[in-house]
Parts: sequence; structure tokens; C-alpha cells
Amino acid sequence: MIVVMKAGAKPSEIEAVKEELIQLGLSVDESRGAAQTVLGVVGDAGLVDKERMAIRPGVERVVRVQEPFKRANRKFHPDDTIVKAGSLEVGGKALAVMAGPCSVESEEQVTAIAKAVKAAGASALRGGAFKPRTSPYAFQGMGIEGIRLLVEAKKATGLPIVSEMMSPHHLELFEDLVDVIQIGARNMQNFDLLKEVGASGKPVLLKRGLSSTIEEWLMSAEYIMAQGDSKVILCERGIRTFETYTRNTLDLSAIPVVKRLSHLPVIVDPSHASGQAALVEPLAMAAIAAGADGLIIEVHNNPACALCDGAQSINPDQFASLMERLSAVASVMGRTL
Amino acid sequence: MIVVMKAGAKPSEIEAVKEELIQLGLSVDESRGAAQTVLGVVGDAGLVDKERMAIRPGVERVVRVQEPFKRANRKFHPDDTIVKAGSLEVGGKALAVMAGPCSVESEEQVTAIAKAVKAAGASALRGGAFKPRTSPYAFQGMGIEGIRLLVEAKKATGLPIVSEMMSPHHLELFEDLVDVIQIGARNMQNFDLLKEVGASGKPVLLKRGLSSTIEEWLMSAEYIMAQGDSKVILCERGIRTFETYTRNTLDLSAIPVVKRLSHLPVIVDPSHASGQAALVEPLAMAAIAAGADGLIIEVHNNPACALCDGAQSINPDQFASLMERLSAVASVMGRTL
Amino acid sequence: MIVVMKAGAKPSEIEAVKEELIQLGLSVDESRGAAQTVLGVVGDAGLVDKERMAIRPGVERVVRVQEPFKRANRKFHPDDTIVKAGSLEVGGKALAVMAGPCSVESEEQVTAIAKAVKAAGASALRGGAFKPRTSPYAFQGMGIEGIRLLVEAKKATGLPIVSEMMSPHHLELFEDLVDVIQIGARNMQNFDLLKEVGASGKPVLLKRGLSSTIEEWLMSAEYIMAQGDSKVILCERGIRTFETYTRNTLDLSAIPVVKRLSHLPVIVDPSHASGQAALVEPLAMAAIAAGADGLIIEVHNNPACALCDGAQSINPDQFASLMERLSAVASVMGRTL
Amino acid sequence: MIVVMKAGAKPSEIEAVKEELIQLGLSVDESRGAAQTVLGVVGDAGLVDKERMAIRPGVERVVRVQEPFKRANRKFHPDDTIVKAGSLEVGGKALAVMAGPCSVESEEQVTAIAKAVKAAGASALRGGAFKPRTSPYAFQGMGIEGIRLLVEAKKATGLPIVSEMMSPHHLELFEDLVDVIQIGARNMQNFDLLKEVGASGKPVLLKRGLSSTIEEWLMSAEYIMAQGDSKVILCERGIRTFETYTRNTLDLSAIPVVKRLSHLPVIVDPSHASGQAALVEPLAMAAIAAGADGLIIEVHNNPACALCDGAQSINPDQFASLMERLSAVASVMGRTL
Repeated sequence: MIVVMKAGAKPSEIEAVKEELIQLGLSVDESRGAAQTVLGVVGDAGLVDKERMAIRPGVERVVRVQEPFKRANRKFHPDDTIVKAGSLEVGGKALAVMAGPCSVESEEQVTAIAKAVKAAGASALRGGAFKPRTSPYAFQGMGIEGIRLLVEAKKATGLPIVSEMMSPHHLELFEDLVDVIQIGARNMQNFDLLKEVGASGKPVLLKRGLSSTIEEWLMSAEYIMAQGDSKVILCERGIRTFETYTRNTLDLSAIPVVKRLSHLPVIVDPSHASGQAALVEPLAMAAIAAGADGLIIEVHNNPACALCDGAQSINPDQFASLMERLSAVASVMGRTL
Repeated sequence: MIVVMKAGAKPSEIEAVKEELIQLGLSVDESRGAAQTVLGVVGDAGLVDKERMAIRPGVERVVRVQEPFKRANRKFHPDDTIVKAGSLEVGGKALAVMAGPCSVESEEQVTAIAKAVKAAGASALRGGAFKPRTSPYAFQGMGIEGIRLLVEAKKATGLPIVSEMMSPHHLELFEDLVDVIQIGARNMQNFDLLKEVGASGKPVLLKRGLSSTIEEWLMSAEYIMAQGDSKVILCERGIRTFETYTRNTLDLSAIPVVKRLSHLPVIVDPSHASGQAALVEPLAMAAIAAGADGLIIEVHNNPACALCDGAQSINPDQFASLMERLSAVASVMGRTL
Repeated sequence: MIVVMKAGAKPSEIEAVKEELIQLGLSVDESRGAAQTVLGVVGDAGLVDKERMAIRPGVERVVRVQEPFKRANRKFHPDDTIVKAGSLEVGGKALAVMAGPCSVESEEQVTAIAKAVKAAGASALRGGAFKPRTSPYAFQGMGIEGIRLLVEAKKATGLPIVSEMMSPHHLELFEDLVDVIQIGARNMQNFDLLKEVGASGKPVLLKRGLSSTIEEWLMSAEYIMAQGDSKVILCERGIRTFETYTRNTLDLSAIPVVKRLSHLPVIVDPSHASGQAALVEPLAMAAIAAGADGLIIEVHNNPACALCDGAQSINPDQFASLMERLSAVASVMGRTL
Repeated sequence: MIVVMKAGAKPSEIEAVKEELIQLGLSVDESRGAAQTVLGVVGDAGLVDKERMAIRPGVERVVRVQEPFKRANRKFHPDDTIVKAGSLEVGGKALAVMAGPCSVESEEQVTAIAKAVKAAGASALRGGAFKPRTSPYAFQGMGIEGIRLLVEAKKATGLPIVSEMMSPHHLELFEDLVDVIQIGARNMQNFDLLKEVGASGKPVLLKRGLSSTIEEWLMSAEYIMAQGDSKVILCERGIRTFETYTRNTLDLSAIPVVKRLSHLPVIVDPSHASGQAALVEPLAMAAIAAGADGLIIEVHNNPACALCDGAQSINPDQFASLMERLSAVASVMGRTL
């Protein structure tokens, strides 16, 4: 962090700022020019409230030089992190593809889909039991029973389970039965939930919030990691813009940006981003070409009847065909599927 | 809801759609034109998944005619709702002004500020004990001790307390000690929290999410009200746009829009919206002129030392002067302060 | 501008950067700390390409300290600018209200509206002759004939004319017949048009672009002023966000921000911002309470028949009633109408 | 277009709406249900002002069923359009890659770059002679002399020239010397410029505006095509969002959406979208995988010295390496480079 003092700042003002920084346990590297004094802060600048410092008497501007995230930062952890959950590995040479229905609806449904996506090469089964719906009158998911059905499908296929948790009341249930706990976009800054999930030590799939910056997203990963849990998978799922043809705008530039800033693996959800089955394939292909470590895709045996989000689901045949095309792009990228 | 069938839709496709609607307990008003058939849905269209219906064979487009919120809808509740919490009334002729520090820091601090804002005419004391901070390393609030200090300040002034709750684990504490439970912008779609707060029956201050549409905001109010709790105060606090001079973009057009769509009271937070103390007065004045039912304003006795958000706090003198100016605008609007 | 060198920057890298700055005619104030060197740039930092400098070897970061606009900057011109065009004055104690039809349709129409808004206290007549329409098949305005009809209405009422110019081919026509040349939101960064209008020396009403930052808006004013024309009126008309209840999101925080950054007058267009007649009054009231210097409002004698934008026009009776309410807010603000 | 009448609409209101539609030369397909009447509009619904119709007495809602663009619409022109300009073909099996400096700086510079990109497989030379800069004090391009230097580079390499035109005053110059006229993002809704360029019949590269919807972008193509010019190449170059790590957010979902809605070829500009050289390769790869017909990429022999936008330029060696990687993705997509 650098504190730029005003051209006419008084020595007493400069001293006051230095003193405050030193009291926070930081060192100050003072650079006096003919016109202006600049204070370089050495130490953990995260301790300083930038906005509050900016209104101190004599301060012209405060510039943060380093990213505010540490455990998620590639600078302090240069090697790629590989998150493992049972047979699933995310972040290595092999791409991870999580597939399954938006909502768990019945044992037949989820087991049939699980078998189909497994046959096509999926590495994990996704399925919603607790659903965040905009309307309180919409189907809210099967709840605990839904988790039980996912476990049945896991028994039948061996696929690890990824499912969204919305309430800390369900933590024990998820710890026992689910392989990767998904934190949805709407809960990306539900900090209490992040802390509790982080303390559990379980692998976490952290979706980017609809209007979250990349930095905020990494700071939410940091919340989880600050509890000691380093098994975080980031998931880009589209941000909110003025465009209305697609449900959200998939921000694929976030992939190379995150790969540079962080060592955490990052995957893409083309289904929720676009809201349209016809866009899943081109966006999935583009995600892999942009360097993503994997995908999470909605697959339903009868999309027109899906209890939620049917419009964006592809069927198992389309998924199998997509996997073949993805395999070719993966190979260009030096990855395997 | 209106389902527009394609020009060449087969009778069997039309029948299938009608049957599905009827099975949901709805009536269908079929309008056959020379070229096209249009189905008008009579009943609770909220039961229909619009996106799923849109991909049914033969369907051209599905148009929702009514708003998806009911309990929050002015159509079904034409009179303004007045939310009461102790001596506080929001939504009546008198404007409500909630004021206080971003964070509770000490008994001296919060009681001194409470006395000052009370003297200037504030109708409630706001103060944060549990703070949603982007960074896990930033001050997270005093927690339960902070609530206790707010209660002391309430004893000293009689001002009802407004404070943010972030976790369902604290519900009992808030039910016992706080007058209005604030749900922050980041938790606006933390649906489990909304349900629990709604079930408590306490007055709720629901902030608009940073990238939430007005409709989503009202749907979150609906989540609370669906539990039987009708004491919801809406709070506009700025939305996220590309502009960077202000922290967020205060959307004052949301005030008249919400007043038309809903019977719930709506107030404005000029402090968080702008992030700058100098903008609090002009935005507060504009909010009242746009028809807001009140304001929530950060006041600190020493903004430069505030443990969070100091840059946007005004001091008690500035608050007193603002209240005088607001009083003049209130009078133009036929309101009192 | 401040150039922060990397911790391990070589002396040769530091010298190379200094030399480049000096060659641009700037002075460099070097501040060497124990860990890091910071270069303060004295002189016109606008000459430096910040992004290019940032990729020079050894450079950590480049921080612009001053705003890039000069002629529009309040720092170099502390007093408010009052723009005069005939009897119209914008930026003084009296608020300016420009009113009239979106499109000029006939002599009867425009003269009748002009008389009505004049009677209600309007200070200028607005009317579109050249219309920027999203569709090439929509009514494009009456063109030159429309300008002629505005001149007739001016003769009948004495109201100065404000009208939008879209092509440099019409500059002579506008110089001769129009009092204030309006540059529309879509042309805010049509830099060639800005230069030509600026060279004419005419008063210019510069609308903010739909996705323009406040800084870009002021830079567009700077384009006009760099040609020697200081008669620029800024107009906030809503920015593009994800919200769909209103056509655009009126950014009223831009008013106090612009007043602080610049000496130019700033007015608000509540009609285009909201796209709805019912929102014109609350937003107009709020604009004045936020400190705007005036308004530009669409008024039509028969909004349901207006050739464009009828949905957002109010009729002359509504305008007269609005002017009375505005007068009361103006008085609170120490302004007159 | 469908006009939904209110449940209690009077017969006279229904008749008035029908009459208005018929007077516009349209047929009306009336569908009377028990509760509600719906009017289906047969004919060119583009003639109806949707917002104005929506405020007619008795009207509940107006729903546009068809896209407002015609000549650009794939429905009326199912086959892909291939735009040709000299040896350049955009929209066929072979991908088109336009490469060159942001700004033309000297004959040596532009010819050297042209030779290098030609050797690496580029199909056209891009280079700016007239530059749209946010600041009036920034380098505005070499102007006419810049065009002359591009012509020299074309002579030396045979590469067709793509360059941006900002003012109608330069139309003759561009008609004579440039192969593809580029319309920049800031001029996407400079409708007068679109009309003049369209009337010239030259191939046009139309960049998407920073805050333009896909529909507005296609409507701007329609402006050009309405003049008889069907040689339009669309170019996605990033939209403006709240994210600040990248200059803009590249919207790759726009590629498959545009390919479905329109027959026009669409290319991607990863350089301007991201503003960072390091992001050019991953975004270029992703663009091709998403189905783009080509790319436009900034290449400079000395990015750190580029007179504008150096930070986003790659050098000729990086370009050659990128072309090899692109070739592999192209092959997966069934395209050639």
C-alpha cells in the first residue's frame, strides 16, 4: 500500500499517518520528494482500512499495490491446486465435468441420468436437493430426501456428488453424504455460511455472485480458506448485465484472469449462464479453449418436464455428443477428458 | 399469463398445453384467431414455470401479465402499510430517519451518538454488531456484545434499535433485543434466512441486493411475507453499475416504482449508496423529494476513526443540519419529520 | 501522476522511465525509499499514456492523481459557469426548464405546446427535428422542415430553441436557427461531431451517454471546450443497468459529483431516463433536490398519439401542475423557477 | 405483434385499436376469449410504435413476437452471408484474421508489421489512422497520411486494409483507398454515419457498442443494409460491466446468439475487449471455439512504445505462435485458418 500525501501536507499530518500505520504493526518506508511525500507501507496492508485512511488530514490518495487475498493468491502458492473429492480431481491435467439434473425429482430420474452421464465420461454427479428459487411459491427442491436419492445414484455409479447447501442447519447432513458442497451465486457473500463450510474442511464449489467482481469472488474463497480449508473450486456462471437475450453474460475472460491471480481451479457453468440449451455447447467449448479446468452442466432425461430450469438442460444424448467435441478441444489445450 | 401458440401449432400440441395448465388447477381461456391460438391462463399463474412452458412443442412465447408477488402487491392491498416497531412508524405521514454508527465500537460511542441523533430528531438508532465485510481479515463487528451496547443506548434514549442479522443462529438474540431486524444487501436472496426471519414475525428492514431487480427485491419481501410476517420495510441502497466515482449508483426511480407496485414502505440509504459523506445530504434530499418514506444514515462522532466505512459517515452536527434541510423538503411533500 | 517502481527495479530502468517523462516536457520528483522508488510527475500528466507507461520494465503501477479534464475542471475555474442563449440562462440562481415535444409534428402542434409550456413558466422550447431511432424503419423526424416549425414557435412565444443535431452536414442550419445545439446520448463520443460543434461556439447541451462514466462525460465536454467553446450544459438522462422496470436508471448522484468536479451547469432529463410519464414528476422533484440546475421535459398535447416516445410525455396540464410543485422545492434549495 | 386488451376493455376501445392498426396497413386477427380479447397483428409490426400502443385506453400489454430486423434476419436469409473485400472472405469455412497496429505511426512500422502478420497467415491488415480517443489531448491518429501509409503496406503485402472511419467528411477517401470501413463501438448508433456508409456499398466492419444489446447491434446493421449494402461484418469487442480487472467484458455468448438470429458473419476483438496482451490468446482461442468467423487482433513491433493501446498489443512473434494454436482449434471446429 502506498499513501500519497498532499503537496502541502504538514509534517504533523505526515507523522500522524505514520504513527497510525506503525501502531497497526506495519513498517513505513518514507519517500520525500521536493514536492510531495509518499509513504510505502511494508507489512500486511490488509490491516489498513483504505477508505478511512484516504480521508485523514493531509492524505491525497491511498493506493493498494497488492491483492487483498493471501491464501488464494498465486504469488504465495505458485503451483496449481488440485482439489480431490473421492475419484474427482479438479485442477490437474484431466478436465472435470460435473453433470446431472438441476433438481433431483425421483430415484429413477437421478439414477438414470447418473448412469448416462457416467457412460459419457462425466467425473461427478450434480443435482439440486435444496433450490434457491426467486419465488417462495416455486418448487424448493426435495430437501433431505433429495440428498438421499443422490446417494443412491452414487452407489449405482460411483460418481461423487456435488450439491448446493443453503443453510448452516444442513451442514452435518452435507458433511456426511455429499462429496463437494456447492455455494450458490446468491450466497457467495453469505459470509457466515462461508465460515461454517470452511471450518468443515469439505471440498467447496464456490459460484461467482451475479454481480461480484473477480476480487470479491477470490475474497469469498479467502473466507473459506481462512478457516483452514484449501479445497475450493471456483465456478464462473455468468454475471448480470443489460443484455437480455441470454439470462446472464458468461465472463470467460475471468478464467485466464483467475488462473493468473490464484492457484485455485476454476470451472464454468454454461447452463445457468445462458439459460438456453442451444448455447451450452458453444459456451462449453469456449470455456475449455479459454483454459477452464472443467465444466458443470445440467442434463435431464426430459428437459421439457424438468421441475426447474428445463429450458437450459440438455438431454443425455446431447451430453454424450458434447463430450466428444470437448475431447477434441481438450486435446488442443494439452488436457484430457 | 398468456401462452401464444405458433402459427402452425397442431391441435394436439394445443391440447397438451391446455391439459398441463388444467392439471395445475388453472382455467384456460382459449382464443382462436384465423392464424394463431392464444391461451389465457386464469388462476394463479405463479404455479406455471414460464421458461419450461416456453419450450413445449407448438409454443411460440409465454407472456406473464401479472406480477409474481402477491402479499407485497398493491393490487391486493391498496392501502399503504405502516410498519411499527416500538415508537418507530414507517410508511405514515411522518418520515422515519434511522441514524447511528456503521459499527458499534463502545458504550460511550454508541450512547453519545444515540443521544445526538435523538436530539436532532432521529426516530430510530441504527448500529452494526455483526458486519458483512468483503475481507475475512477486516473487523467483523463486536457481535453479541455490540447488541448489548445498542440495548444500553436504547435505554438511555428510548430509540428503537435497527441492526443487521447475518446468521439464523442469532435469531433468538435478535428477537429478544432488537426492534427491527436488518437483512443486508448481500443476504437479500439468502432465502433460508428470509424464511426464518419471516417466521419470527419481527419487523424486517430488507435492503435491495447490489444487482437485484425491483421484482426480485419484492419477491424477497414475498418470501418473508409468505411466512405470515407483513412488517417489511424496503430499503434502496444503490445498485452496481460501471460508474466508479460513487461506490454504487443510487436508483431513486425505484422509489416511485415500488410505491406503485407495492403497499410496503420504502426508505433510502444514501450513505452506503454513495460511500462519500459529501453526497449524503444531496441524495437524502432527493430521496425525500422522490417520495421515500424515510432514510437510514450513518452518523459517527469521529468519522476519520470509524472502524468501518468512516468515509461515508457524517458527524452529529452535520446530521442536525441535514435534518433541518430535510424538514423543509418533507413539508413540500406533505410529510413531517 | 505517480509512477511506482517495483521493489527490485534496476537503476537503469528507473532512469529510462525518468528520461521518457522528461522528453515529454515534464519534471520528475524522485522519492527513494529503502525498498521502493516512487516518481512524482510534475507538469501536464495528460501527455503520458498511463497504460503504456505501466508496462515499461521495472514499473509496478502508474497512478493518476489529477483529473484528465482541464477546461471543464472546477479546480481551474472555481466559479459556476452560467450558460446563456437568448433569454435562457442555465447555471444561475434561477432553474432552467426546457419543455416541448419529443418530435416536431406540425406547426399547430409545436406552437400550441410552446404557448402552453411558456404559460406554465418554461424557459426554453425543446423539440426534435432529427431523431435518433434504433430502427431505420421508424419515423426519423421532420428534418429541416421541423427546424423551420420550431422557429415559428419561437416567433410566437419568444422561447429559445433546443434541438438535437446528429450530422455535421447540418451545422450551418443549426448555427443560424437553433439557440442550443443538443448532442444526444448516442453521439456523446462522436468526437468529430463534438469538435465541429465546439468550433461553432454555439451553446451545447451535452447528454451523458448510456454507458458513459462521469469522467468520460466531462472529457466529451472537454472536446467541445478545447475548441474554445465554454458554453456547455451537461444533461444526465439515465444510464444502462440490468433493471428493466424503467428504461434507464437515472443517476442522480451524478449531479452533486459533477458540481464538485466541474463548474459547468448540469440539468436532468426525467422523461428519457424513465420512459414513463408517471415517473416524470417524482424524478423531476428529486433532481432539483439533488442540486440540478434545471430540467428538460417532454410535453405533448396528446401523448397517446405522439409520433415517438408518447409513453413518456406528459400533457400541458400535468406540466403546469409539475411546475408549481417544482417551485416549492426550488425555494427550499434557495433557487427560483 | 400481439395486443393484449384488458379484461374489462370496452368494445369501443378494442375497435379503436383495431382501426389504428388497419390504418397502418396491417391485418388484425381478433381472438375473443371469455375473459379477454387478444389482437394478433399480421403484417409488418415494425410500423407500430409498441410503447405508444401500450398506453392506449383498454390495452393491457403489447408483445412483440418477431425481431425488428429484417435484412439482417436469418429467417429471411437462411444461408450464411460471406463478405468479400479483395482477397479477404469473412463468413466462409476459412477463418479471417485481421491484424496490425492500433495506430499507424510510420511507413517502416506499418509495412514491417504487415509483412510479419502476412507471413504468419493474417488475411487482412488493420490499422488506425483516425483514432477515437477519450481525451482531446491524446494522439488523434495520423489522419489522411495514415491511410496513405496503409496503402503502401497493402502494396508491399497484398493484404486488404481495414480502418476506422469517424466522420462522413472522409467517405470519399475511404471509398477510394480502404477495403473494409470500420465503424467503431462509440459510433455504433451514429445513425447518420451508418446511412452514409451503407449508401456507399463498401464492406463494413460494425463493432458492437459498449452498452449495446445484441438487438440494437443488429438494428445498426439493419441501418446499413436498409441502404442496400449487405456486406456487413459484425464484431464483438466487449461490453461495459462492473468488472474492472479487464477493460471490458467480452461477451462470447453473443457469437452463437448472433449466428442464430442473423446470417451475417461475426468476428471477435480480444485486444480491445480485455485491454491486456496476456489475455489475447485465451480469448482468441475461446472465440473460435464459440463459433466466431474470425478475429481482429492488435500487433505491434514494440508494444511498450505504441502511441496508443500498447498494453493490449502482442508482438509479431506472439502473433505467429497464436496463429499456430488457433489453427488447431479451427480444425476442431471444422474450419481452416
